[in-house]
Amino acid sequence: MIQNLTHRKATLKDLATIIGLILEDDELAQSRESQNVYDPRYADAFHHINADPNHYLMIVEDGAEIVATCHLTVIPSLSFMGSTRLQIEEVRVRKKYRSRGIGEWMIKAAIDYGVERGAKIVQLTANKERVRAHSFYEKLGFEASHEGMKLYVGDI
Amino acid sequence: MIQNLTHRKATLKDLATIIGLILEDDELAQSRESQNVYDPRYADAFHHINADPNHYLMIVEDGAEIVATCHLTVIPSLSFMGSTRLQIEEVRVRKKYRSRGIGEWMIKAAIDYGVERGAKIVQLTANKERVRAHSFYEKLGFEASHEGMKLYVGDI
Repeated sequence: MIQNLTHRKATLKDLATIIGLILEDDELAQSRESQNVYDPRYADAFHHINADPNHYLMIVEDGAEIVATCHLTVIPSLSFMGSTRLQIEEVRVRKKYRSRGIGEWMIKAAIDYGVERGAKIVQLTANKERVRAHSFYEKLGFEASHEGMKLYVGDI
Repeated sequence: MIQNLTHRKATLKDLATIIGLILEDDELAQSRESQNVYDPRYADAFHHINADPNHYLMIVEDGAEIVATCHLTVIPSLSFMGSTRLQIEEVRVRKKYRSRGIGEWMIKAAIDYGVERGAKIVQLTANKERVRAHSFYEKLGFEASHEGMKLYVGDI
């Protein structure tokens, strides 16, 4: 079970590990990612994320081992009386450490992070094929109130 | 029909008009917004949005009249080989100008804006109660592939 989890901001040294987590995720990721964790497109994206204080690429460690990651973005917004939102993307838990409560710990840490930065709404989208993810988030209080709509406009 | 539409970045002078558009929208907005378009919480949020080059609060004008608005955010991302995303929020068309193609014009302009900034994915969430919105976006090529999950953590 959960031992000694901590989270911190990812550094460039962590990038290959994070991409590895995205790749190992499941069949959805396999088809759309470069199999090379050192693909320079990942490093480019990392630098954009890392340079912007509204982004927090979270690494969760159990001791010295990276066991999970997610990407948080603080988004100011006019609606709901000017409520800041926290958006969660790229939620991944290392396969061999799943079903131990690490994902729950991480999402709760993400919510705390958002609340500390004034967020009133925490939001994410989950692919409809990831059925288990929906009940996971509903147990944490999320409601599937919206359709998450995507349009792919590039060669991906 | 569409006459002479243009878009530009909103300024503080436009804010009361934008909030008016959010308020007039429909029954969903009525219950959750301040009825005072000069509520300082809106101005605070505007300043955060305005100061960040990754945000574009779009105003659509027909001649000199503001007829629609949306809020665009450019989000760097690791997945899909480091693909930048464009997120669309707060889509509003002035009630008396609906069903004239203004919304379609605006979303296409938003997509163009995203493509110019390297976005490979354009994404938004639409409340499941807004049934007409779903077919509107599907006609523009969006797919409702995800559950849009929200958690409210503040007093809103």
